[in-house]
Amino acid sequence: MSSLRDAETFPAHTPAASQIFTTVLCHGPITRLEVARRAGLSPAAVTKAVRPLIEAGYLVEEAEEQTRPALGRPANPVRVDGSRALFVGVKVTGDEIIAVLTNLCCRIRAARHAPLPGREAEDVLARVADLVAELRTEAEKSGTPVLGLGVAVSGDVDRAAGVVRWSPFLEWRDIPLAGLLQKATGLPVTVDNDVRALTVAEQWFGAGVGLSDFAVVTVGAGIGCGLVVHGRVVAGAHGVAGEIGHVTVDPAGPPCHCGNRGCVEAIAGDAAILRRIRDTTGAEVAGVPEAVALAHAGDPVARDTYARAGEAIGRGIATVANLLGPERVIISGEGLAAYDLFAEQIRDAFAAAAFGSAARCDVKTRPLPFEEWARGAAATAIQSFIRADDQPPSR
Amino acid sequence: MSSLRDAETFPAHTPAASQIFTTVLCHGPITRLEVARRAGLSPAAVTKAVRPLIEAGYLVEEAEEQTRPALGRPANPVRVDGSRALFVGVKVTGDEIIAVLTNLCCRIRAARHAPLPGREAEDVLARVADLVAELRTEAEKSGTPVLGLGVAVSGDVDRAAGVVRWSPFLEWRDIPLAGLLQKATGLPVTVDNDVRALTVAEQWFGAGVGLSDFAVVTVGAGIGCGLVVHGRVVAGAHGVAGEIGHVTVDPAGPPCHCGNRGCVEAIAGDAAILRRIRDTTGAEVAGVPEAVALAHAGDPVARDTYARAGEAIGRGIATVANLLGPERVIISGEGLAAYDLFAEQIRDAFAAAAFGSAARCDVKTRPLPFEEWARGAAATAIQSFIRADDQPPSR
Repeated sequence: MSSLRDAETFPAHTPAASQIFTTVLCHGPITRLEVARRAGLSPAAVTKAVRPLIEAGYLVEEAEEQTRPALGRPANPVRVDGSRALFVGVKVTGDEIIAVLTNLCCRIRAARHAPLPGREAEDVLARVADLVAELRTEAEKSGTPVLGLGVAVSGDVDRAAGVVRWSPFLEWRDIPLAGLLQKATGLPVTVDNDVRALTVAEQWFGAGVGLSDFAVVTVGAGIGCGLVVHGRVVAGAHGVAGEIGHVTVDPAGPPCHCGNRGCVEAIAGDAAILRRIRDTTGAEVAGVPEAVALAHAGDPVARDTYARAGEAIGRGIATVANLLGPERVIISGEGLAAYDLFAEQIRDAFAAAAFGSAARCDVKTRPLPFEEWARGAAATAIQSFIRADDQPPSR
Repeated sequence: MSSLRDAETFPAHTPAASQIFTTVLCHGPITRLEVARRAGLSPAAVTKAVRPLIEAGYLVEEAEEQTRPALGRPANPVRVDGSRALFVGVKVTGDEIIAVLTNLCCRIRAARHAPLPGREAEDVLARVADLVAELRTEAEKSGTPVLGLGVAVSGDVDRAAGVVRWSPFLEWRDIPLAGLLQKATGLPVTVDNDVRALTVAEQWFGAGVGLSDFAVVTVGAGIGCGLVVHGRVVAGAHGVAGEIGHVTVDPAGPPCHCGNRGCVEAIAGDAAILRRIRDTTGAEVAGVPEAVALAHAGDPVARDTYARAGEAIGRGIATVANLLGPERVIISGEGLAAYDLFAEQIRDAFAAAAFGSAARCDVKTRPLPFEEWARGAAATAIQSFIRADDQPPSR
C-alpha cells in the first residue's frame, strides 16, 4: 500500500502531526493554541507541525481581524482545505452499491448508485471498480486527485487485514477485498464494517465530534451499533463488537436468525416487523413502506408492532448505557423513516431500563440518507490517509 | 495531595517514565528492549528513564549469566523491588471493613478485619483510620514507608473528585471520602468503585495483564462488571458503567430493586437466590451457606435456583461479549463458592447467546478471597502513586 501512497504522500509523518491535523479537521477553524490544548501538545510543536501542512495546501490560514503578530506566534485560526483532495466511499448493501465522491472534509461532491449484480465477489468487485472509475472521471473535472477508497460492508470485517471475514447479506467468507480492489483501482483501499464506518464519520465529522464515549445505533434491515470508548472505535478482540441487534430483550420472544429468541433484531429489524404484521393480520405487506403506511393509517397490529420494536430498541440502548455509560447515543439508519411510530417507546423503555445516572445519556436521532453509509466508508479512507498507523484521534 | 507526596516523590516525572515503570511492574523481570517494544518508546528513552528508578531503589537489575556489556546497553532484565514501598487498601462492605497492607507489587503482607460500626460516614471513617494506623504500625517493623491508601466502595464513585456519589449498601450520598481520610491519615488517598478497583488489580497484577480488552464479572451480593477497553478501565461519562447486574434477561422475571424486572441481579444476586428458595420451599434458609448446602444435598428447588442464576449470568456475559468483544472475561467474587452449582449453566447460556466469533472470548473463573477486594483498593493507590496524572497504562 505504501508504494501506492508515494503518488501523494501526506506530509504528517509522526503520530503527533496526524493528531494535530485530525484536530483541525474535526474542530477547525481553530487556533494553534486551542489545537495544542486539545491534543495535549506544546504550542511550539503545533506551530511546527502546521507549517508543512500549510505549505502542502492541506491547511489554510483564516484571515482574522485581530491578528497579533507582535506575539510571534500566528494567532489566526487554521482550517482544512477540503478541496485539497478527494476520496471515494462505497457501501455494498444486499441489493445495491452506493458510491460517493467526498472532499477531504468528507462533504459529498457526487454520488452513484448501481444495482448489485448478484452476490459473487468477482461481479460485485467489477461493479464497484466501474463506479469508482465514474467518480474519478468526475473528479478529474476539478483537477483534484482522488487519494483513497473506502468500502463498507455489513458483517465481520477485519480492517487491519483488509478482509471481509463473514458477511451474511452477501454470503461472503474471507474475501481479501482491500487487496483485490487495490489491484483493480490502483488506490489505497480501506475496508471496514458498515456501522463502524458510519461511526467514524460521526466521530470525525458528525454528532460525535469532541466526545470520547458515544454510540451510534442504526435501525433498519438489521439493528447495529458502533461504539466509541476512550476516543476510539471498538472493534472487538475477535472481530465482533456492537452487536446490539443480538442483545436478548425477551427470551420468550420470536426466533432470531442467530439461533436465539427475542433478540432486538428479531423484534425490531425490518424483516421481523414485516413478518409479525403479515402473520398477525394475514395481509400481504410487500415491504417497509407498506408497513409504515398501514401503521400511519391506524392499523392496530401495525402500530403495536412498531411500538414493540421501539421498546426493544430502547431496552437495547439502555443495555449499552448501563454497560458503557456513553455521553451520547445517536440513533440513525433508514428505519428512522418510521421514527414517529416508535420514538416514544424507545424513550420510555430507555428511561425505564437505564440504571441510575446512565439515564443522563443524551439519546438523539439523526436521520440520514442512504448515501451517508457510503460517506462513512469515505471517512475511513480519509482516516487511513491521515494516519497510516491508525493512531487514536485526539479528544 | 501533592504536599503529602513530597514526603516521598516517585522519580518518574513524565507520562513516558510512568509508563515504563508500569510496564516493568506488570511484565517484569523484563529487558529494557522488551519494555521499549511494549511501550512503543525508543530503547534509549527506556535506558534513560530506568536509571533514576534504579538509583531510587524502585527497580533492581536481575543478575543474568549471559550479560553482553560489549553492546553498550545493559541487557540484564529489570524488575520492580516490591519491598521498596508499602500501600494500604481498604474495602468497605455492608457489614465489614477489610484492610490489607501490600507491597509495591500488590502482594498482601498483612490484613485486618473489623465489623462495620453502623453506616454513619463519620463512624466508618474513624474505624478505617484505626485499621490504617494498625497496619502502619505493622509496616514500621519492616522500616518500609507506607506511601498511599486506596479505598473501594460499591456504588457510584467519582475517583477524580475523591467523592462517593451514591453507595446503596452504605446509604451514602456525596461523601468526600478521599479528602476526609487524607486529613485523618496524612496519606494520599484514592477512592474508587470496588469492582473497578478489582479490575485495576487484574489489569496490573492478575489475569488481565497484557490484555487491552477484558472484563471482570463479580458474582455475590451484587452482580458487577469491570470493563477494560483500549487498555483503560471504563468509568462511564456519568459515573455509571459495567452494570451487568441490571441487564434485563427476562422482562417477565422477578422484580429488581432498580425498579425493573428480570435483571441479572434480580435472578442471580445472593438476595434473589435466597428469596426464591424461601418463597418456593417455605424453608427458613438463613444465608448463602445454607442455600449452597441445600443445593449440594440435592434439593431440587435450590439446584434449579442456582441453575437459573447461572443462565442469567451467562446471558449477561454474552451481552458484554456481543457489545465489546473482549479477549477474556474473568468471573470472580464470593459467589464463586457455589460455582459448581452453576458453572455449566453459565457456560451453556454464554455459548448460546454469544454472537458469531464473540463466542471465542476466553471465559475463565478466578476464585478470590474477600481480601482480594481490599487488594484491589491497594492497586488503585499504587496506580495513583505511579502516575499522578492518571495516564492510560502501557499495553
